[in-house]
This record gives sequence, structure tokens and C-alpha cells, in this order.
Amino acid sequence: MSEVFNKGQLAAQAARSLNNVTTKQKNEALLMMADALIAATDEIITANKLDLEYGKQQGTSSAMLDRLTLNEQRIAAIAEGLKEIAVLPDPIGEQLQQFTRPNGLNIRQIRVPIGVIGIIYEARPNVTVDAAGLCLKTGNSVVLRGGSAALHSNSKIVAVLQQALQQSALPAEALQLIEDTDRASVTELIKLDRFIDVIIPRGGASLIRNVIENATVPVIETGAGICHTYIDADANYDMAAAITYNAKVQRPSVCNAMETLVIHQQFANEHLVALCKLFAEANVQLKLPAAYLANIPEATAVTEADFATEYNDYILNIAIVESLDEALTHINRFSTKHSESIITNDAAHAARFLQEVDAAAVYHNVSTRFSDGFEFGFGAEIGISTQKLHARGPMGLPALTSTKYQITGNGQIRQ
Amino acid sequence: MSEVFNKGQLAAQAARSLNNVTTKQKNEALLMMADALIAATDEIITANKLDLEYGKQQGTSSAMLDRLTLNEQRIAAIAEGLKEIAVLPDPIGEQLQQFTRPNGLNIRQIRVPIGVIGIIYEARPNVTVDAAGLCLKTGNSVVLRGGSAALHSNSKIVAVLQQALQQSALPAEALQLIEDTDRASVTELIKLDRFIDVIIPRGGASLIRNVIENATVPVIETGAGICHTYIDADANYDMAAAITYNAKVQRPSVCNAMETLVIHQQFANEHLVALCKLFAEANVQLKLPAAYLANIPEATAVTEADFATEYNDYILNIAIVESLDEALTHINRFSTKHSESIITNDAAHAARFLQEVDAAAVYHNVSTRFSDGFEFGFGAEIGISTQKLHARGPMGLPALTSTKYQITGNGQIRQ
Repeated sequence: MSEVFNKGQLAAQAARSLNNVTTKQKNEALLMMADALIAATDEIITANKLDLEYGKQQGTSSAMLDRLTLNEQRIAAIAEGLKEIAVLPDPIGEQLQQFTRPNGLNIRQIRVPIGVIGIIYEARPNVTVDAAGLCLKTGNSVVLRGGSAALHSNSKIVAVLQQALQQSALPAEALQLIEDTDRASVTELIKLDRFIDVIIPRGGASLIRNVIENATVPVIETGAGICHTYIDADANYDMAAAITYNAKVQRPSVCNAMETLVIHQQFANEHLVALCKLFAEANVQLKLPAAYLANIPEATAVTEADFATEYNDYILNIAIVESLDEALTHINRFSTKHSESIITNDAAHAARFLQEVDAAAVYHNVSTRFSDGFEFGFGAEIGISTQKLHARGPMGLPALTSTKYQITGNGQIRQ
Repeated sequence: MSEVFNKGQLAAQAARSLNNVTTKQKNEALLMMADALIAATDEIITANKLDLEYGKQQGTSSAMLDRLTLNEQRIAAIAEGLKEIAVLPDPIGEQLQQFTRPNGLNIRQIRVPIGVIGIIYEARPNVTVDAAGLCLKTGNSVVLRGGSAALHSNSKIVAVLQQALQQSALPAEALQLIEDTDRASVTELIKLDRFIDVIIPRGGASLIRNVIENATVPVIETGAGICHTYIDADANYDMAAAITYNAKVQRPSVCNAMETLVIHQQFANEHLVALCKLFAEANVQLKLPAAYLANIPEATAVTEADFATEYNDYILNIAIVESLDEALTHINRFSTKHSESIITNDAAHAARFLQEVDAAAVYHNVSTRFSDGFEFGFGAEIGISTQKLHARGPMGLPALTSTKYQITGNGQIRQ
């Protein structure tokens, strides 16, 4: 049997006993995991150096190497993350519904663990700890499949966490790392319905697409964000400038950053030049409809293909529209249904936007950058779902749970 | 462009305007659809006769032909079903959460339509109407792909419903039927992520497996049920006999019928012969562990493969165990996680069973046959989900909805 099959099976067996641990036992295990990480700081840094050396040999970019780097401070922050998960309320066992039928059946719907969660991700070794903590807190086993770039770091971290689990009431087998970084191990994992209940891919578009196209295990799709901000005719310039600047410039590499700014012609006539100057000063490369290039010499012409591109970079498309309807049509056409915002003082326009734009999060007079589990107050985030089933938008702990109906009676039979 | 692509696109366009119709408009449309079906009774029966003739030529079984048959009474019952959906509460717009963050952001989570739902099913033409009614009630477009055996009936029914929709406030394009009954049209539909938001297969195991293995659109898995009843050592004989007889015999062809009866040895010693006599009198073919065959001459030996089989027929496996633990192990090994029941007077055993058995519905002193949207009081059922994401167990109208976060502020930007 392969590594994937064996570890999937162990995780599934562990899931059954995980179902019986208490909240207190889970929280204690999380704190033990945090302490173990701190205690193993030197070993983890040593393992991480092997990944960094390999990365340098491979010509990995300095930005990527920085993401991959673990030092004392970062390991402390990662351990702190586990402690924060430990103090969050436990959703497992929560009663969602309870009712009695005329025939006397008592029906309760309660939250239960999903079972075994497979997480497929790329470079960052902090995801290893974060995903393990969130899954164990919700009583799930987790099978991690990280990228080859972080293999030494991930292997060491998981070994440390498993040792901590062995001292806890939780089964150490509930945490598994697939060390085979060949692509075939991903393919095997996403088809392992027998043991894996859900796959959450965290990474770039091609990783996610590969999982969706080949998985037979249900997938929670996360990530892709072509986010828009629409500035309405009557919007206040200062607010519009502050929000759109924040949405584009504060952290362009993330999924909730703005890719396209849609502007009502009336607002554009008055403010486009000033707004573009602001973005240009922040080194944002601007793409505009050809008709507007004369006034904005630093911009280039925007194309249909640009509107369909998630840059995650200092690049911004601008579309000019003549009405709210035209803005809605543009957004519903190009949106990846992640996060969309309207800036307006017109309450009726805001209401229509919030109703008619089909996205996980729709905003009025707010930056799209707030689409985030921590900003929403969930205390945790396993990702941002861009699909419509199970969970949509920022996913906190309840997104890692399923439900079960418990029905009690006294001999009822169906007529 | 193919039929599937064109109809998928029309449905997706219609979904956008469906998002803006009121509950009253949807309910009126459902009533108009019901009236139109009644008015078209003769035409529908004529179309249905073509399917029945074709079925007879193909040597279709009389049971299958009966399921396919539409007559005045059945059409009236189907139309009545639409009227019942019309009076159900509309889940769309329901506020699930509302909270204000310290920075003043007001966050609401509301129920919204999923968008476009694809339903793939087999012979029964009543599913055509039922699925259309449930999807439209929840503001979703629906693309139906029925089997070739019911093509004439389905085409006529959908034409009648679309005509009714044309008189209503709902777009007629929200209801689409794929008339291409080649298997390739299923393959195309389940990969049409661009327009279809979820696929619900309703049918036999091979249909469902094909969809799960090939879909890129998210799937809600329904149906497969290897359901168990466990009779504990101290169970009351009369209750155990009544419940297990009901679970097996009342309607063996359905997914919530019992396939395997697990009996504590102590109960079996006293009651196995009497219980088997009861089943044998109802023409249930019994499969028992070899050691018990001497006492039950009408039974044959049960195998591991039998325990993994969903018969949907008058066949029953029996397993004899020495403890609750052994029963739990057997059930968690062979269960398809649909519906499982314990019969016991021991409250601690019942609690352990309800906690430790991993299934959509777990019962104490109740027949598994109650796993049903109507029996749960949902007033509707689109199927019984056996997966753990999105919806688990009997699915009523809320299972056909997604959610959206609406966030309002006054210029908040992320720090």
C-alpha cells in the first residue's frame, strides 16, 4: 500500500476516536503542541535551513524564500496561533435544531466533526501548524500534503506535533503528513473517498484547478479573487480614494485585493485624473479604456482579457460605466464571486448592489480587504470559500464541521 | 454550441433575474404551473403513452413501467405537490447572523439562491415537476437531465411548465430540460462549471458514481443506504420485532430500508428463531452466520460481500455480536452513513450509539424508514444527502440555498 493510502487509513481510524474526546482534552492538546513547537525551535530552524538552501540552489525568488523562512520569532508567532485556537469556542456538539414531531419523534440536529480533512498547499510552513490546529480543534483528523519546497520544515514540524499529541488524549495518528511530493500523491489523495471526507486546496489557481478537475472527494474551493470596487456617480471623493487605494495598494498579493475599479462616468469626469495620480504615485500600473488614455499618459489600454485576470500585483484595470446597471453587468460578468464593493451615498443604489451582485461578500463604503476570518471576528480562518456549497466567504471553525440528526422515540414505525 | 451549453447559459442568465423576484411572485408561478399541468392532462398522457410503448418494446419490467406511467390521478397528485411547495416558507432572504465589529462594520449573513442547479435522474417523470418546483421556490434556475425512458413525458411536462412561467413574473428560461439523452450530455453538464453551481444526481449507484468521478461542478451525493438496526441484549422483543420488520418489509426498495440486522448474542439466543420466522413469512430471504444456520433452515450463510451490499429487496443480512462495541465496529465498517438505529432500554448504550455511529441520521427505538424530508416535517425533499458537506440527511428547501455576507460601513479601510 502507498504512503497516501496508509496515512489516509490511519487518519480515518483516528477520526473515530477523536469523535469522543472532550473540548478540554482538545484544548490541552493544542497547548501542548504550542509548547512543543517552542521547545523544538532550534531543530525546526535547522530543518528549515535545508529547505532554504535547496530553494537558493533552485533559484527561488527572494520573496518566496522569505515566506519559507522560519526563525525564532516566527515559530513563536505560529505557536501563539495554536494557543489562540485553543481559546476559541468549540462548535462540536452545538445543537442547531430540536423539534418534536406529532408522532412523538424527538429530532435534534447537532454539529459533528467532518471526519478526515485533506489539505493541499504550497510553500508556507505556517499553514502546516495552522491547519493542524483548526482541524484538531473541530475533532477532525487531517492529512497534510505540502509542497516540496518546505518538505524538511514540514516533516520536522509534524514530527514535533505528533510527539506532543502522544502525550495528549488525542490520537497522534489524527495528524498525518504526506512526504511524497510527487504530483501523483496529490492525485491519489484527492481520489481517496474511502478515507478522506473533504479536500481543501490552498494555493495558486493551477493547484486549485487541478484538484477540482480530478478530485472525487468533495472539495471546498478557496481563493481566486477578481474583486471590483464600483464608485457611483455621487460618491464622496475622499472616501472613494481612501477605500480604493486601500483595496489595491495595502497588500496587492492577496485574494481580497481589488483588481478592477469600475467608475461612473460622472465621477470619472471630475476625479479620474486625481485618482489615477494617486495610484501612479504608489507605482500601480494603470489600464484604462482607450478613450481616456489622452488624459492619463502613464496608463495603457485595458482589454477584455485584462478584466478576466487576477493580477495579485500593482496593476489595476479601470472600467468607466454610464449607470449602476452597466456596473452590475460588468461585475457579474467578470467577478469570481469573492468580494465586491460599492462606494455611494445613494441608499437605493447600495441596496441594489448588495442584493444583485452575486458574491461571497458584498460591501457598501468599505474596502474589500476586510474579507477575512479574523476581520469578521471568527478568531480563525481556514480559507475563503468562493463556492456556493457548504461554506461561502471567510471560513471559521464551523466550516470544518458537519451535522448529524439524532432521533429518539419509543417504538415508532412508518405507516 | 451544444444543447447543454446553450441551455446552461440561458439558465445562468435567468438566475440573475430570479434573484430579484418576490416570494409572492414565486408562489404565484408555482400555482400557475400546477394549473397548467392539470389543464394539459390529456396531452401529457398522450406523450407518456409514447414512452410506455417504447418501454414495452424494450422489454422494460412491469415495475419500471408502472413507475413511468402517468394518469389523471397521478398528474393531479404531481400538481398538488407544486401547490404544497407554494405554501412552504421561503428561506431566501432569511438573516442567519448579524453583528457589528468594533470598527463599526455591520455584517449580515443572509440566505440567497445557489444559482443554477443541475439534476440528473432516471425514469420517474414526477421528479421533473418536483425538482422544478423546489428549485424555483428557492430562486434557483434548474437544468434537468432525465433518462431516455421518460423523454416524451418530460419534454411535454417541461413545455407545459415553461408556458406557465411565461405568464408569470419568473423567467421561463429558469427551467431547462436537456433532451439529448446520450451519455455524453451528462458528461458535458457535470463539467459545465461556468454556468452550473451544483449537480444533484438522483438515481442508482452507477449513475451517482459516474457523476462523482467525472464532475468538476460540486456534487451533492444522495442515496446509497446500507442501513443497520442493532438489537441490544436487553431489548424488548415486541418493539424490536415491530421496528425491524418495518425497516425491512414496509418498502424494501428505498434507501432508508434496513439491509443488515445486528443482534446481541443474548437477545439472539432467546429470540432469533421467532424473529427469523417473522421475516421468512414476509418472504424475506435471510442470510446468517454459518453457526446459526442449523436453527434457521430457511437461511443461507452470510458473507463479507453481503454486508457490503445494498439489496433494496426482500433480502436481509443478520450479524450476531457479543457486545455494543462489536456492533459499533460492524456498523462503522459497513455503513454508508445514511441511517442507523439501536433498539435498547439501556440509556447509556443508546447515548453511545447516537454519539459514536457516524451517519446522517441515528435513531434510538425508531425505524430507519423515518429518514425522509416529509417525515422530518420539512414539507419537501430534494433527496437524502449521504455526504458531509453542505447538507447531510434529508434535504428540504434550505439545502437548495447558499449564503452571502452583506457588509456596510462608512469608509473603513484595513490597517
